[in-house]
Amino acid sequence: MELAISADMLVAGTHFFHDADAYKLGWKSLAVNVSDMAAMGANPKWATLAIALPEVNTAWLAEFSRGFFACADAFNIDLIGGDTTRGPLTISVQIMGEVPIGQAIKRSNANVGDEIWVSGHCGDAALALAHMQGKLTLPADAVASCAEALHTPQPRVALGLALRQIASSAIDISDGLLADLGHILERSNVGATLMLSYVPHSAYLADKLAGAGHSNEDVANTHDNNILSMLLAGGDDYELCFTAPIEKHAEINNLSEKLTLPLSCIGRITANAGLIVHGFNDEILDFKETGFDHFS
Amino acid sequence: MELAISADMLVAGTHFFHDADAYKLGWKSLAVNVSDMAAMGANPKWATLAIALPEVNTAWLAEFSRGFFACADAFNIDLIGGDTTRGPLTISVQIMGEVPIGQAIKRSNANVGDEIWVSGHCGDAALALAHMQGKLTLPADAVASCAEALHTPQPRVALGLALRQIASSAIDISDGLLADLGHILERSNVGATLMLSYVPHSAYLADKLAGAGHSNEDVANTHDNNILSMLLAGGDDYELCFTAPIEKHAEINNLSEKLTLPLSCIGRITANAGLIVHGFNDEILDFKETGFDHFS
Repeated sequence: MELAISADMLVAGTHFFHDADAYKLGWKSLAVNVSDMAAMGANPKWATLAIALPEVNTAWLAEFSRGFFACADAFNIDLIGGDTTRGPLTISVQIMGEVPIGQAIKRSNANVGDEIWVSGHCGDAALALAHMQGKLTLPADAVASCAEALHTPQPRVALGLALRQIASSAIDISDGLLADLGHILERSNVGATLMLSYVPHSAYLADKLAGAGHSNEDVANTHDNNILSMLLAGGDDYELCFTAPIEKHAEINNLSEKLTLPLSCIGRITANAGLIVHGFNDEILDFKETGFDHFS
Repeated sequence: MELAISADMLVAGTHFFHDADAYKLGWKSLAVNVSDMAAMGANPKWATLAIALPEVNTAWLAEFSRGFFACADAFNIDLIGGDTTRGPLTISVQIMGEVPIGQAIKRSNANVGDEIWVSGHCGDAALALAHMQGKLTLPADAVASCAEALHTPQPRVALGLALRQIASSAIDISDGLLADLGHILERSNVGATLMLSYVPHSAYLADKLAGAGHSNEDVANTHDNNILSMLLAGGDDYELCFTAPIEKHAEINNLSEKLTLPLSCIGRITANAGLIVHGFNDEILDFKETGFDHFS
């Protein structure tokens, strides 16, 4: 086996609100790392947790632990060590997993002609955030599922394991579809063409997309509540974006049924560098904002 | 091989000053973790670094990296991943190493009758800190060595590797000799007797100890600049404290010569729970403060 390792740090004020629900924060702290394992096709096994706390709040810690271990138990992960210290609330998780030698899915092996796929939906977490911030109002039947996507994402481990012999490359969507797909394109030295209408999204976003303008002026608007921005650059999706040879198309559809998980083909890998997105009328859209850069 | 894993989080304001020298901080961030590896008898190999930065300061980052990689190179450690995010300066390092199956040195195998040993000096880092805080004035010839102990500690990897077949238990001294030895005693379900005069220390501390009172009132004084407190509870020593059967005494002395590293026998493991320290006149000393508890 090869050892797969991933590390993530979550900081109060940057990644979550200071008054975030402790249980959900515990779940998500581990889940975002498990998601990295899934993208490598690795089986997550052990985690360490280093946490800085401003004070000892046993009730908060109990809830945080409950959420953390709920995720750990769901994926058979053992917490094997870490550190506790005083400081501004900061959570650093490292996770270790196994993958058979040579079978790890990387970001660097996408081939020209491969199809591009995405699991689940894009944009739900961004919608939930905008709803919490009062920037839009989700309908009642969308609030719960979007909130769950934001607060307690489900890392796609089963999918990742199944993709070992299928996907040429994979990444989990944390910064946003365009940004993370961009990492694959850069590492693989290829380009991509995406069809906007194929990018999977909730019914709420479908309504909005139908109504929204799709001119270059519209999509160039990187305002936070811009619908396209939320779909393609909202981040926090924790779905997998992967590439695979076209011959695997039927196999991937079967996998989707077997896992009861939507898998959507959204585009193709091309030889020319660059990421081209075709709008609903096949027009080419131009995006300025492709993801979340902490320092910009 | 077995995989040994250790994680540590350093927070500005708790573990280091906000204006700490970036190079030395880089070195120390890794060194304190390498020290954990040494205490397990593990050969350190890979590290991840998750860091939260308040802003992008390329000069600071260049110096931090220089120090980090100086330590990594010194111990043949590869930095294989991590995370960078915005937030209050927080550094989370995880280190992974290897040790042959069954040979890892634990905290739980100290046996009654074993001798207790310490490498290097205790107290130098605490002296440096007190000097920086203006609580005492070190003589010129002690400033450099004490500052080095505080800022750029040398993890005792070679010693740790050599102790695999020698030590029954080991720990690195981060919180303080009494506190860390206390972890061994607790995990091994044993007690200990220490001879104060055997605990290795700098010439400066030797002078002070000769002059200081050793009554129970003196040692019960847990004020920061109390000399005994600095020696036994100052922390940040990053030396190894280990136990070994008495039959290994000569072998350990030989090892000390071979490594050019002082190894001092300071006491014995006893059956009765508790840690008893004998002063210079063999009187029993009583300690209230046994180490640094972040939340007290």
